[in-house]
Amino acid sequence: MKVVSAIKRVPEEIQLRLQTRFPEATFVFCHGMGEAKDSLEEADVFITYGEDLDKEKIQTAKKLKWIMVLSAGMDRMPFGEIAKRDILITNVRGIHAQPMAEYAISMLLQVSRKAKTLLEQEKNEEWNRRPVMQEISGKTMVLLGTGAIPQEVARLAKAFHMRTVGVSKSGKIRPYFDKVVPVNQLDLVLPSGDFVVAALPSTPETEGLLLEEHFNKMAAHTIFLNMGRGDLVSSEVILNAVRDGEIAHAVLDVFEEEPLPEGHPFWREENITVTPHLSGISPHYVPRGFDIFEENLAVFLSGEGELKNMIDPKRGY
Amino acid sequence: MKVVSAIKRVPEEIQLRLQTRFPEATFVFCHGMGEAKDSLEEADVFITYGEDLDKEKIQTAKKLKWIMVLSAGMDRMPFGEIAKRDILITNVRGIHAQPMAEYAISMLLQVSRKAKTLLEQEKNEEWNRRPVMQEISGKTMVLLGTGAIPQEVARLAKAFHMRTVGVSKSGKIRPYFDKVVPVNQLDLVLPSGDFVVAALPSTPETEGLLLEEHFNKMAAHTIFLNMGRGDLVSSEVILNAVRDGEIAHAVLDVFEEEPLPEGHPFWREENITVTPHLSGISPHYVPRGFDIFEENLAVFLSGEGELKNMIDPKRGY
Repeated sequence: MKVVSAIKRVPEEIQLRLQTRFPEATFVFCHGMGEAKDSLEEADVFITYGEDLDKEKIQTAKKLKWIMVLSAGMDRMPFGEIAKRDILITNVRGIHAQPMAEYAISMLLQVSRKAKTLLEQEKNEEWNRRPVMQEISGKTMVLLGTGAIPQEVARLAKAFHMRTVGVSKSGKIRPYFDKVVPVNQLDLVLPSGDFVVAALPSTPETEGLLLEEHFNKMAAHTIFLNMGRGDLVSSEVILNAVRDGEIAHAVLDVFEEEPLPEGHPFWREENITVTPHLSGISPHYVPRGFDIFEENLAVFLSGEGELKNMIDPKRGY
Repeated sequence: MKVVSAIKRVPEEIQLRLQTRFPEATFVFCHGMGEAKDSLEEADVFITYGEDLDKEKIQTAKKLKWIMVLSAGMDRMPFGEIAKRDILITNVRGIHAQPMAEYAISMLLQVSRKAKTLLEQEKNEEWNRRPVMQEISGKTMVLLGTGAIPQEVARLAKAFHMRTVGVSKSGKIRPYFDKVVPVNQLDLVLPSGDFVVAALPSTPETEGLLLEEHFNKMAAHTIFLNMGRGDLVSSEVILNAVRDGEIAHAVLDVFEEEPLPEGHPFWREENITVTPHLSGISPHYVPRGFDIFEENLAVFLSGEGELKNMIDPKRGY
């Protein structure tokens, strides 16, 4: 039984732990796909970020029974070939929830508490207590999406005594939400949001979902935050909403075009904060991914229990 | 029954609410002490920030039975005169807990997630995902003090899955702390703190409590945050600890000398973040203070129940 990993820089501690716990398996830790592809022919299990996997590589890996994808996005997966061969496929869905929820709370605090202004004052050695800061506690947060990531944001929002309103396809109530409405009631809940937080994946339904009319519905003091996908709303709509004072501030981690090019008007707009698609980045990413892998490997080898985060290659999620 | 307030800019909504709820009382809302002092002679109840109250004013207020101090610090109160006349005195102890807890979490996120660097990149229109951010989730927070303010910080820290260790005079366990030790065991718990947060009042016991040896005990990655009082630790000790790499960063809201003078080395030290004693500032301060006053006024007028936050003028707290 051979496990091949294409993940770069897997901490030695994790490598040792796996080899000790599963002596029946041989582990080959490679530094990226360039190195891993020579071992693919022998691999029963393959660990990958997914973006470097194509049909040819799947065909080379004749013994392959399970692909563990250390990512949540599965856009580039050769699902046809995987389905044909009945290869199991799992991912690390949910792994982004914690860093992304921290990102959201962190950025809402940063904007509400005037961090930009205070850091500027510090640079000027200026003792000035007049900038008017807002608390985030007790506010209302409208969340677009109610999956693992928005749920973790809502959990932290509740710790800050916020009211949490979710918007989802089904409108089904979820933990940490005071209320969830279906997407056709989006208009009705937007005006109540001191914060409107979007953490939606890119699907045909979410592409271009937010329009000018939605920003018109928001309160003038609303902080809008998008950490899902950039195609949720056009740059022009956001820019106009901020410039016309329809909302107070936009925090953007995702964009129609990434990297956001130098010279894009977002960079210099006072009431837009740009971060370079980093909400999901965490120093704990690889360890957390391998924790899920380790649980799944125990199931895979013993045949007992159920694999976590199984993907249906026919549906792609 | 006359209630005189020296608090500036009390929202009209609050004035109306009080007058409607307590028709037996006449309310005089003055714009500061300058205006209020002419009504003092008639006042049964006086609402003040406290710093403008002296022995002479108490003597003028011949009918005064209760002073409501809209502050937590009582340093300048003429307690001798108050005690002699058996005047009741209450304050707004605990009102700072929520904004100060937000401040602490906000600043730990700001430093851990490299906000300074990211804002600098934004200014330079630079898309760069390499700055290594740390999560605050799952870390250990050592809190100096276990009163209302540190307890609220600990509550939020628990929401971020942190381990919370308190240090107090008694070492008595408190809500939201995983462990509390008496101050003579300070040395033993400091090494475990990813974050060391001080929210101690100024007393003879806390003055100069933290010495060089304590910073030597902290981990090199520790973020130290002081939002209590500046006399807890000398500027020199903090500066050396940061410059010698005994700790990674200091977040300071309070100082030996306030305002922190221009040219002070703290301003320009890369790993020190200075804020101008603002952790307790909140746009909700006056409404929250009047909420406590309103509760107390109902008790005062009916004689039923107990006044909240009574101060013993002989002890001064």
